[in-house]
Amino acid sequence: MAETLGFIGLGNMGEPIALNLLAAGYGLRVYNRTPSKVAPLVARGGLAAKTVAEVASAGGIVLTMVADDRALEDLCLAPGSFVEKLGAGGVHISLSTIAPATARRLSAHHAKHKVDYLASPVFGRPDAAAERKLWVCTSGPGGARRRAEPIFEAIGQGVLHFGDEPGAANVVKLCGNFLIASTIEALAELMVFAEKNGVSKSAVADMIGKFSPLHRGYAKLIAEQKFEPAGFRLALGFKDINLVLQTAAESVTPLPMASLLYDRWLSAVAKGRGDLDWSAVALGAAEDAGLKPSLRSEVVE
Amino acid sequence: MAETLGFIGLGNMGEPIALNLLAAGYGLRVYNRTPSKVAPLVARGGLAAKTVAEVASAGGIVLTMVADDRALEDLCLAPGSFVEKLGAGGVHISLSTIAPATARRLSAHHAKHKVDYLASPVFGRPDAAAERKLWVCTSGPGGARRRAEPIFEAIGQGVLHFGDEPGAANVVKLCGNFLIASTIEALAELMVFAEKNGVSKSAVADMIGKFSPLHRGYAKLIAEQKFEPAGFRLALGFKDINLVLQTAAESVTPLPMASLLYDRWLSAVAKGRGDLDWSAVALGAAEDAGLKPSLRSEVVE
Amino acid sequence: MAETLGFIGLGNMGEPIALNLLAAGYGLRVYNRTPSKVAPLVARGGLAAKTVAEVASAGGIVLTMVADDRALEDLCLAPGSFVEKLGAGGVHISLSTIAPATARRLSAHHAKHKVDYLASPVFGRPDAAAERKLWVCTSGPGGARRRAEPIFEAIGQGVLHFGDEPGAANVVKLCGNFLIASTIEALAELMVFAEKNGVSKSAVADMIGKFSPLHRGYAKLIAEQKFEPAGFRLALGFKDINLVLQTAAESVTPLPMASLLYDRWLSAVAKGRGDLDWSAVALGAAEDAGLKPSLRSEVVE
Amino acid sequence: MAETLGFIGLGNMGEPIALNLLAAGYGLRVYNRTPSKVAPLVARGGLAAKTVAEVASAGGIVLTMVADDRALEDLCLAPGSFVEKLGAGGVHISLSTIAPATARRLSAHHAKHKVDYLASPVFGRPDAAAERKLWVCTSGPGGARRRAEPIFEAIGQGVLHFGDEPGAANVVKLCGNFLIASTIEALAELMVFAEKNGVSKSAVADMIGKFSPLHRGYAKLIAEQKFEPAGFRLALGFKDINLVLQTAAESVTPLPMASLLYDRWLSAVAKGRGDLDWSAVALGAAEDAGLKPSLRSEVVE
Repeated sequence: MAETLGFIGLGNMGEPIALNLLAAGYGLRVYNRTPSKVAPLVARGGLAAKTVAEVASAGGIVLTMVADDRALEDLCLAPGSFVEKLGAGGVHISLSTIAPATARRLSAHHAKHKVDYLASPVFGRPDAAAERKLWVCTSGPGGARRRAEPIFEAIGQGVLHFGDEPGAANVVKLCGNFLIASTIEALAELMVFAEKNGVSKSAVADMIGKFSPLHRGYAKLIAEQKFEPAGFRLALGFKDINLVLQTAAESVTPLPMASLLYDRWLSAVAKGRGDLDWSAVALGAAEDAGLKPSLRSEVVE
Repeated sequence: MAETLGFIGLGNMGEPIALNLLAAGYGLRVYNRTPSKVAPLVARGGLAAKTVAEVASAGGIVLTMVADDRALEDLCLAPGSFVEKLGAGGVHISLSTIAPATARRLSAHHAKHKVDYLASPVFGRPDAAAERKLWVCTSGPGGARRRAEPIFEAIGQGVLHFGDEPGAANVVKLCGNFLIASTIEALAELMVFAEKNGVSKSAVADMIGKFSPLHRGYAKLIAEQKFEPAGFRLALGFKDINLVLQTAAESVTPLPMASLLYDRWLSAVAKGRGDLDWSAVALGAAEDAGLKPSLRSEVVE
Repeated sequence: MAETLGFIGLGNMGEPIALNLLAAGYGLRVYNRTPSKVAPLVARGGLAAKTVAEVASAGGIVLTMVADDRALEDLCLAPGSFVEKLGAGGVHISLSTIAPATARRLSAHHAKHKVDYLASPVFGRPDAAAERKLWVCTSGPGGARRRAEPIFEAIGQGVLHFGDEPGAANVVKLCGNFLIASTIEALAELMVFAEKNGVSKSAVADMIGKFSPLHRGYAKLIAEQKFEPAGFRLALGFKDINLVLQTAAESVTPLPMASLLYDRWLSAVAKGRGDLDWSAVALGAAEDAGLKPSLRSEVVE
Repeated sequence: MAETLGFIGLGNMGEPIALNLLAAGYGLRVYNRTPSKVAPLVARGGLAAKTVAEVASAGGIVLTMVADDRALEDLCLAPGSFVEKLGAGGVHISLSTIAPATARRLSAHHAKHKVDYLASPVFGRPDAAAERKLWVCTSGPGGARRRAEPIFEAIGQGVLHFGDEPGAANVVKLCGNFLIASTIEALAELMVFAEKNGVSKSAVADMIGKFSPLHRGYAKLIAEQKFEPAGFRLALGFKDINLVLQTAAESVTPLPMASLLYDRWLSAVAKGRGDLDWSAVALGAAEDAGLKPSLRSEVVE
């Protein structure tokens, strides 16, 4: 049997990933802020850790999938953290989408405890996680990356390596989310354009889906205005666009398209749509054009 | 042997399309404003028409692939035009990317001469045209569309039908070009973002290409800054973004992302880049970030 | 008594201007598409012309204040137009805000009839027109400008000369309207910003009004959301922003701020606000921020 | 003789303000990070403080004019700070442009030491400061504001009160800087527009200056491309636009015009223009239009 890993964070991405690790034969000590979410893992053979630090064993591996930079830093920097417990030879595989600067800061912090920090953000929505179809982007110490390979294989369809620099994988992940967000806005605008010019949105969605698998899903969601349940919460998407702009500011890089996306997303949050799927940002383009999209959940207002 | 068609416009898209029609066994009467471009077609069995109207025969089919709305209207509306010569039962297959409003205007004009106008813009760059990998979007009278099917098969990999409304196929084509243009700008910005944050552009291009065939080509062009020879001239791309905004204005549809693209493209034209590939618009994001991209052809200046 | 002038166009700007000309002692032959609007002028001594051409006398002066480029070209280019009747030594003072290109085209046309075209757009809203507080921007032949001086004095507080080039005064007028439109959007955004951060809009409006007379009026309108009656119709403002962008395109000049204004204005038109004052564009920024501004006239919907 | 005040921060705004306080008869204990800048103040009767805390006396008044939020927090929150030394009955008049959130945080901190925090940012460039033509915006405890009145009179031409909420004056100050920044970008674009359409930039600047005193100075700077010496450093302006966007994000307020300004300013910083006057951002619009503005200091590169 494979070794026992630590796993922290059982949200709608973390849970299916942890289940796949169990399915692949790994032992798992799991922790979640809301304890009730641990039960399904325990049912499949996972061990419930009572404290965060308990998930770690000396020289072992801990994976984390938490909401944002703040949550991750709180976990790692607290005295007596799981990082300290990992100690020499330990590896922290951080699956969250966070700022490259945070990854670099944590990497330096971990080094003091002789722990390797592996930035390992993933591409894919919860259904892809469940089907082991994630793509893992990873960067950090080469030895740790090699050690993590079988773990990555257990949770995804492929691994992309971006060298030793701890922030690199996060830069790449932000590139990817920026690209998807821009795709959503472009699709939103062109669907309104089609509709206002007498062409059905679903005809356009079909065509685009024919050309590009990457666009297919979002084109369909936007054409059908089906924004619930959220595959990826709009508020989390806003967090990522924010990370893009913050990181861009630190590197003195103006990104006008990212700014446009920022304003669209912030407006959607202001309109109370933070819990819808992030493709719900498409409502903005429709409203600007004087359409009154009838979103089921908002009709009640 | 299949019937003899008329063909007008032997630019870098028209020529390979015409060659494929010849290869498929069609007879072809060809016309081009610059007569020298007719020679390669004649070498493969085409007939050189001395005047535009000469390409048409009563009740036959004429295909056109010309640069813009103006050129097409000049061809069609002149007294004694090929449309008049086609007359009752004739079909005009218009392959150009033009405004939906122009398509509607021409359709009405053609109807007076009992000619069916088929809006049939195509997706694909010159290499795709040569390899019969175009996608044809078509709208117009159903009978004419059925009659045109084998022709479309001879030049592309698939046909998408958008009903009887003559402008519909052009609306859809503009949607497609808008989407591609937005992809170019997004790729441009994220490559600068990656570069400024220490990640190589080609690593990002590889990752994106892995996820999405649609993005692969442009990601590579932009990462390598290889903007010559032009697969699709930047100035022509600007024309299309213009058509999107014009058509959007007529339908009272604000498209902020299209406006952003418009400004980028117009700036690239102002900087003398109209003859480069339209992905050269990516230089704008780099320059805004204080980079001085060394474009081979511009270094000489 | 001063000479008798022709005057075409009695809208909410044209009427007070014409009244001031009568008040200054000029004779006036007036024409308006909707004849009923002529009565108030006749009541003050004006002469009602039955046809457009009738306003002109050989070698005389005609002023026009019509809605847009199209209306002006229709007036001028028709056979037997007032321009032909003016003939040698005649002067056409065109007060409308139109494209510089249109001004150049008309100037060339007028020259064929030996008529001087004076581009003479004005700054100021209807109340300023009534109080003779307009500013006139003028360009065209020097002799005609000198001849027009006393007329300009009768209708405004000052004249600004921009040389002989017929389009120049229109370029300048578009600059001015662009500046005002950008001011409206900036005020709109900062008022929402203030409101969302607990500072009253009227306090901000007062402060801004203290610093800048130019901003005072719009700051107050936006703070109070008093968009009716329209001093300057939003739809006309959109026309002007369009002229800016069109003229900018012809001169290959990207103007991202003008593009932003364009989208805001177009959205306001899409939302049915074309007949409100153009400061009503401010509702867009408020709605984007999740506010539901209670516009009196729209509540009824 | 008036009481003795503490004064921290002798930059190009702080110095003339401090000199005016001396001129008005106040005693002054001054501190500056770079000690050499204290000499001119001592020459006019000021007392050089050896440490920051030394500028304060129990129950007295200290004014600060430092570069940014960070610098101000460092000054105030350090143990043994001047705030602690002020103690009960003390007043801290903070002249810097900072985030409203910082002002609120400091206000709460000061309250623990029974010190009143007065947010008192000022409008005006260094020459206005020297001529006592600043406008002071102030908010905070009413008693402290009344006590500060004669001080404000000694340094400016007027005081605007925005109530007790400590952040309010900073909100208003950010509104003002946002408005000025938008004016700069609008002027920049319209000057390029004029130039490309054959109208001289100085003619446009003259016209605008005639209408609006607020615009006169910037219109002239941009027309003449005279960006040195900096009245207000571009990098500091970028800081303020950042504060606007940060504060807007906290209050969930999308500001697309502020985003556009952000990208322009960030690009100017990326191009190495952070030390020029902030109107130098105008070079961006010119470069986008394919012009190569010959900035004296950059030609040398």
